[in-house]
Amino acid sequence: MIYLVFIAAVLALGFAAFNFVTVKRMPEGTKQMQEISGAIRVGANAFIHYEYRILYTVVAAVAVLMAVVTTWHAAVALLVGSIMSGCAGFVGMKIATYANVRVANRARETENVGETVKVAFRGGSVMGLCVGGFALLGIFLVYMVFGVGMGQARITSASYTNLLGLSFCPFTMTLSGYALGCSMVAMFNRVGGGIYTKAADMGADLVGKTEAHIPEDDPRNPATIADNVGDNVGDVAGLGSDLLESYVGAISSGIILAYHLFSKSLAEGTGMDGELLQTLVLFPLVFVSIGLIASCLGIASLLFKKNMSDDPHRDLNACTYFASGATILLGLISSCLMFGGFESASLKEILGFQCGQFSPWVAATVGVAAGVVIGMLAEYYTSAGFKPTRNLARTSLEGAALTITQGLALGMKSCMAPCLILGAGIIASYQAAGMYGVAMSAMGMLSFVTATVSVDTYGPISDNAGGIAEMAGLDAKVRKITDTLDSVGNTTAAIGKGFAIGSGALAALALMISYLYSYNDFDTELILNLIEPMTLAGAIIGGALPFLFSGMLIEAVAKAARKMVEEVRRQFREIPGILEGKRKPDYKTCIEISSKGAIGEMKIPSMLAIVVPVVCGFILGPEFVGGILIGSTICSIMIAIFTGNAGGAWDNGKKYIESGEIAGSGKGSPAHDAAVVGDTVGDPLKDTVGPCLDIFIKIMSTVSLVAVAVFAEHNLAAWIMGLF
Amino acid sequence: MIYLVFIAAVLALGFAAFNFVTVKRMPEGTKQMQEISGAIRVGANAFIHYEYRILYTVVAAVAVLMAVVTTWHAAVALLVGSIMSGCAGFVGMKIATYANVRVANRARETENVGETVKVAFRGGSVMGLCVGGFALLGIFLVYMVFGVGMGQARITSASYTNLLGLSFCPFTMTLSGYALGCSMVAMFNRVGGGIYTKAADMGADLVGKTEAHIPEDDPRNPATIADNVGDNVGDVAGLGSDLLESYVGAISSGIILAYHLFSKSLAEGTGMDGELLQTLVLFPLVFVSIGLIASCLGIASLLFKKNMSDDPHRDLNACTYFASGATILLGLISSCLMFGGFESASLKEILGFQCGQFSPWVAATVGVAAGVVIGMLAEYYTSAGFKPTRNLARTSLEGAALTITQGLALGMKSCMAPCLILGAGIIASYQAAGMYGVAMSAMGMLSFVTATVSVDTYGPISDNAGGIAEMAGLDAKVRKITDTLDSVGNTTAAIGKGFAIGSGALAALALMISYLYSYNDFDTELILNLIEPMTLAGAIIGGALPFLFSGMLIEAVAKAARKMVEEVRRQFREIPGILEGKRKPDYKTCIEISSKGAIGEMKIPSMLAIVVPVVCGFILGPEFVGGILIGSTICSIMIAIFTGNAGGAWDNGKKYIESGEIAGSGKGSPAHDAAVVGDTVGDPLKDTVGPCLDIFIKIMSTVSLVAVAVFAEHNLAAWIMGLF
Repeated sequence: MIYLVFIAAVLALGFAAFNFVTVKRMPEGTKQMQEISGAIRVGANAFIHYEYRILYTVVAAVAVLMAVVTTWHAAVALLVGSIMSGCAGFVGMKIATYANVRVANRARETENVGETVKVAFRGGSVMGLCVGGFALLGIFLVYMVFGVGMGQARITSASYTNLLGLSFCPFTMTLSGYALGCSMVAMFNRVGGGIYTKAADMGADLVGKTEAHIPEDDPRNPATIADNVGDNVGDVAGLGSDLLESYVGAISSGIILAYHLFSKSLAEGTGMDGELLQTLVLFPLVFVSIGLIASCLGIASLLFKKNMSDDPHRDLNACTYFASGATILLGLISSCLMFGGFESASLKEILGFQCGQFSPWVAATVGVAAGVVIGMLAEYYTSAGFKPTRNLARTSLEGAALTITQGLALGMKSCMAPCLILGAGIIASYQAAGMYGVAMSAMGMLSFVTATVSVDTYGPISDNAGGIAEMAGLDAKVRKITDTLDSVGNTTAAIGKGFAIGSGALAALALMISYLYSYNDFDTELILNLIEPMTLAGAIIGGALPFLFSGMLIEAVAKAARKMVEEVRRQFREIPGILEGKRKPDYKTCIEISSKGAIGEMKIPSMLAIVVPVVCGFILGPEFVGGILIGSTICSIMIAIFTGNAGGAWDNGKKYIESGEIAGSGKGSPAHDAAVVGDTVGDPLKDTVGPCLDIFIKIMSTVSLVAVAVFAEHNLAAWIMGLF
Repeated sequence: MIYLVFIAAVLALGFAAFNFVTVKRMPEGTKQMQEISGAIRVGANAFIHYEYRILYTVVAAVAVLMAVVTTWHAAVALLVGSIMSGCAGFVGMKIATYANVRVANRARETENVGETVKVAFRGGSVMGLCVGGFALLGIFLVYMVFGVGMGQARITSASYTNLLGLSFCPFTMTLSGYALGCSMVAMFNRVGGGIYTKAADMGADLVGKTEAHIPEDDPRNPATIADNVGDNVGDVAGLGSDLLESYVGAISSGIILAYHLFSKSLAEGTGMDGELLQTLVLFPLVFVSIGLIASCLGIASLLFKKNMSDDPHRDLNACTYFASGATILLGLISSCLMFGGFESASLKEILGFQCGQFSPWVAATVGVAAGVVIGMLAEYYTSAGFKPTRNLARTSLEGAALTITQGLALGMKSCMAPCLILGAGIIASYQAAGMYGVAMSAMGMLSFVTATVSVDTYGPISDNAGGIAEMAGLDAKVRKITDTLDSVGNTTAAIGKGFAIGSGALAALALMISYLYSYNDFDTELILNLIEPMTLAGAIIGGALPFLFSGMLIEAVAKAARKMVEEVRRQFREIPGILEGKRKPDYKTCIEISSKGAIGEMKIPSMLAIVVPVVCGFILGPEFVGGILIGSTICSIMIAIFTGNAGGAWDNGKKYIESGEIAGSGKGSPAHDAAVVGDTVGDPLKDTVGPCLDIFIKIMSTVSLVAVAVFAEHNLAAWIMGLF
C-alpha cells in the first residue's frame, strides 16, 4: 500500500511537468509584453536565488546541529524536506513568471474569459501539483530509506523495553526532521516573500495612488515591477511552501501520534499490536495519496473541459468540490478496508474509536467540513457581498480614522465564529477517534491541498497578468477580462487563508500532543497542566510571542516600504518626464530595495520560532516550553484570523468604494482616500502577518518536538532544583 | 486584628470627607467658569443617574437569581459590594466635577504650579480614599456579619466532613458574591463611561480638529462639553470602580484560596490547623489595611507639604513611593508577627512556603516590584521621551497609513516585556509561597491602590481644568499651568494602566485557581489539563472572547462617534455664526447623543462576561469553562497591553509632532494630520478596550466561581454522557 504514495507522487509530478511545458509553449504576445514579463522574471529569479542562499546556509547549520545533538537520520531527513519544499516553491514561482504574460496574451487573442481562466489555472496547477507531489515523494523516500530500509519504522511489541528506554522513537524523530526541513523553507519563503511583496505594494500605493494619483500597475510608477515580482515570490512561492509545510505537518503529526499511542498502549498493557500500528501509520499516507489523485482528476476535469461557464468562480469551485468529494468517498472505502479487520470493541478500548472502522474517516470528514465552513466564514467577513465589509466601506465616508477603527472592530469580532467551528471540530474529531482523530481532522482539511493551492495560485498569476496588460497598454477589453479573473482570485485567497489557519491550528495541536508524549512517561496520564507555575508562565510569555513576531513583521514591512516611498519620490523629483510618460522610470533600484529590505529584515523573525523553544527548553525545561506552545498557538490563531479578515475587508471595502455604489464614493473621492489608507494598513496584516503565523506555531511545535529529547533531561532549571 | 480593617476604612473615609469639604469650599472663579463647570456637572450627574438605574436593575436581577440558585448570604453580599463600589464611583465623580473648575481658578489666582497641583490632587485623593475606604468597609461588614456573626468563617477540623460534603465553603461563596457586586459596578462604569467619553472625544476631534481645524476644548465645538463630561464619568468614576474591583478581587482571591488550601490539607491529612487558616485569611486583610493607612500618610504628606517642587511628577511620585515603601516595611513586620508562631518546616510542607514566616511578604513584595516595572515599561513604550514613540512620531511624516502601521507594530511588540515580568513574577511568588503567593503578589500590587488612584484621578481633573480654562477664555499663563498638569497626568495614566492590567491578570489567575479547587475533589491533584478536548476547545473559544468583546466595544464607540460627527457637522451647517464665535453651539444635544450611545451600546458587552461562563457551564460543564477562563485571560492580557501601549504612543506621538521638534512637523502640518488619525484610532483602544479587559477576565472568573457549585453537578454534557 505504501507504493500508492509513490504512484500518486509520480502522477502529480508528471502532470505538473506536462502543464509546465504546455504553458511555456504558448505565445508571449507583443514585444513590450515580453519585455515587461522578462523584467518581472529576472527580478523574481534574482530574489529567490539570493533568498535560497541564506535559507540553505541556515538549513545546513541546523542540520549539522541536529546530527550532533539528536540523530544523523533526522539531519538527512531535514535536508530532504528542505529540498522538496524548496523545489516546489522554485518550480511554482518559475511557471508563474511564464504564465502571467501568457494569460494576458490569451485574453488579448481570444477575448474570452473561459479560455483565459484555463491558462491561468494551468499555471497555478503546476504549483498545486508540485506541493502534493514533492511532499509525498519526500515522505516516501524517508519512509522507505529510514523506516523500512533501516528498520526504524519496524516497532513491534518485541522492541517494547528498548523503546521506552529511549525518550523518543527513532522514526518519529526522523519524520520530525523531515517536517522541520519543509517548515524552515516555508518560514523563509513566507516571511521573505511577504516582506518583499508588501514593501513593494505599499511603496507603490503610498506614492502612486495617494500622492501622484496614478492608477494601480501604471508603468509610470517606478515600484510597479517590484510589486509584480512580489506577487510571484510572496503569493506563489510563499503560499506553495506554506501549504506544503502544513500538509507535511498534518501527515507527520498523525504518524508520530500513532507511534506514541502504540508506546502508550504497550506501557499500559492495553495491547495494541504491530498490525494496528502499521495501519494507523499507513492510513494518513493512503488518505492523502487518494486526495492527491482526486485532486489530479479535479484539475484535469477543469483543464480538459470544453464549455467553460462565464463565471470562473463556479468552474474553480467545481474543481475543488470534485477533489474534496472524491477524497471523502474514496477515503470512506479505504477506512473500511484498512480498519475493517479490527474489532470495533477493541478499537474503542485501545484508541477511543467510537465509530469503529469508520472512526478515522469520520474525523477526517469533520476536518474537511470544518475547513469548508471556516473558509465560508472568511468570505462572509471579507467579501463586499455581505454586511460587514459593506458597513466598513460606508464608514470610509467619515474619514480614515473611522475606517481603521471599524476595520479593527470587524477583524476582532470575526475571531469568534471560526473558533467556535474549530472548538466543535476538536470535540467532534476527538469523540470520533481520540487524539488520533484530531490529527486526522487536520489531515482531512489538507488532503486535497493540491486542488486548493492550484486555485489559490491562479489568483496571483491573474493579478500579474492584469499588471502586464496595464503596463503594456493593452486594450481595455483585455484589462476587463483580467480584472474579472483577479476579483475571483481575491475571494479564493480569502477562503484559502481561512483554510490555512484552520488546518495549521489543528496540525499544531496534534504536534503539541506529540510533544507532550515525548517527555512524559507513557504510564502516566498525559497532561499539560496550566496550574503549574512554569507552564502558566510559559503560556503567558508564549501568548506574547506571536504578538512580538507580528509586530516585528509589520515593522519590517513598514521600514522597507518607507525606503521604497523615498526612492519613488526621488525618481519623480529627479528624473523629469516620468509622470508625463516621456521617460521610463528606474525599475531596477526599486526591485533592489525590496530585495534588500526583505533579506535584511527576514532573518530575526524567521529565527525566532526556531531559537525560542530551544533556548527556553534548555533553561526552563519542558513544562515551560509546553506552556509556550499552547499560549502561542491560541494567540496565533486569533491574530491570524483578526489580521486576515480585517485586511481582506479593507481591501474589498476599497474596491466597493471604487465601484461607486455608495453615494458620495467612487475613485478620487475623499471616501476613496480613506479607503486606500485602510487597504494600505491591511496589506502587511493580511499578506505578511497572517500567513506567517500558522508556520510560526508549527515550526515552534516541530522544533520543540525534536529538541525535547535532549532538554527534557538536561536543563538549567532541573539542574538548579537538583542542587537543593 | 480584624478591627484594623475597620480603623483603616474609617480613617480613609474621614480623610476623604475632609478633602471633599475642603475642595468644595474653594472659590469657583468667574461667572463663565461657573457656567461651564455647571454644565459639565449637570451632564455627568444625569448620565450617572441613568446608568446606575440600569446597573442596579441588573444587579437586583442577578442577586435574586443568586439567592435562588446558591445562597441568600451571597446575594446580600453582592448587594453590599455593588453599593460600596457604586458609592465610591459616585462620590469620586462628584468631587471631580467640583474640583475641575477650582483647579482652573487656583491657577488663575496664584499662577503657581505647585499650589494648583495640590488642589487637583486633593480632588483626586477623594476618589482614591473612597476606593480603599469603601472596599474595606464592605469587606469588614461582610466578614463580621456573615463570617463571624453567622459563623461562616469558623471552619475548623471539626467541620471537616461537613465541609467536603459541600462543593463549596459557605464563606467563600459569600465573599465571591461581594466581589461580584463590585465587579458588576466596575463593568458598567467602565464600559458605559468608556463608550461615553471616547464617543464624545472622537466626535469632537473628528470634526473639530480634522475638518474645522479648531483647537481642542474650543468653546465653538458643540461636542466639547460632552468631551469634558466624559472625562468625569469615564476616567474618574470608571477608573475608581475598576481599581476597587481589582482590589477586592485580589483580597478575596487570597482569602478564598486560604479556605481551599485548608480543605485540601485536611483531605490530604497534611494537617493545617484552624489557627493557620485564620492567619492566612487575616494576612491579606491586615496587609491591605496597612497599605491603606500608608496611602493616607502619603497623601497627607503631599497635601500638607509647604514647598512644592516645580515638577509635579516628582511630587506625585514621592507620594506613591512613600505609600509603597511604608506598606512594604510595615508588611514585613506584620508577616513576621503573624506567621512567626508557626514552624518554618511545617509551613514549607503544608503550604510550600519556602521562606518561612517571610514567605507571604516576599510574594507581596514581588508583586509590588513587578507592578512598578510593568508601569515603567508602559511609560517606556508610550512616552515621547523614549525611542519607540519618537520613531512612531517620525513615521507621521509619511502619512496616516504608515502611522497606523507603525503604531500597531509598536503595540504588538510591547507585549513581550511586561509578559516576561508577569511570568517571572508568577514563578517567583509561587516559589516563595505556593499558590497563596500568587494571590499575595496580586494583592501586593494593589495594596497601596489608594495612592495610585489618587494620582491617576488627578489626571482627568487637570484635563478638565484645562478645558474649562480654554472655554472660559482664561489667560495663556493659566492654560500653560493646566497643560503642565495635564501632560504629567498622561504619564501617570500610562503607568496606572500597566499596573491595572498586571494586577488584574494575577488576580484573575488566583480566582481561576480557586475556581478549579471548587469543582475538583480535594484529594486529587489540581489540574487544568489543556489536552482534554473540552478544555482545549474552551481555551480556543475563550481566546476569541476578548477579541469579540473588544471588537464590540470599538464598534460601539465608532457608532456613537459617528452620530456625534453628524450632529456637530449639522450644527456647523445649520446654526450660522458658531465658527465665528458669534453664537453658542447646542452642547446639550451632544451630551444626549453620548449618553444615549453609551447606555444603548453598553448592555451587550457588559453582559457577555456574566452570561458566557454560566451558559457554557450549564451546557458543556466545568472543564470547558476552565478552558474558557485560561484562554480569555491570556488573550485579554495581550490585547490590553497591545491597545494600551499603541494608543498611548499615538497620543504622545501626536503631542511630540505638535511640539514641532521634528523637521517638517508642527500643528497644521500634513504630519500632524496623520498623527491626529493615529490618536483618534488609539482613543477607543487605550481608554475603552484596554481598561475594560481586566474587569472582563475577573468578572468571568468570579461568575464561574459562584456558578460552578451548581453547574459542576448539573450540566447538559454530563447528562448526555450519562445516557450512554
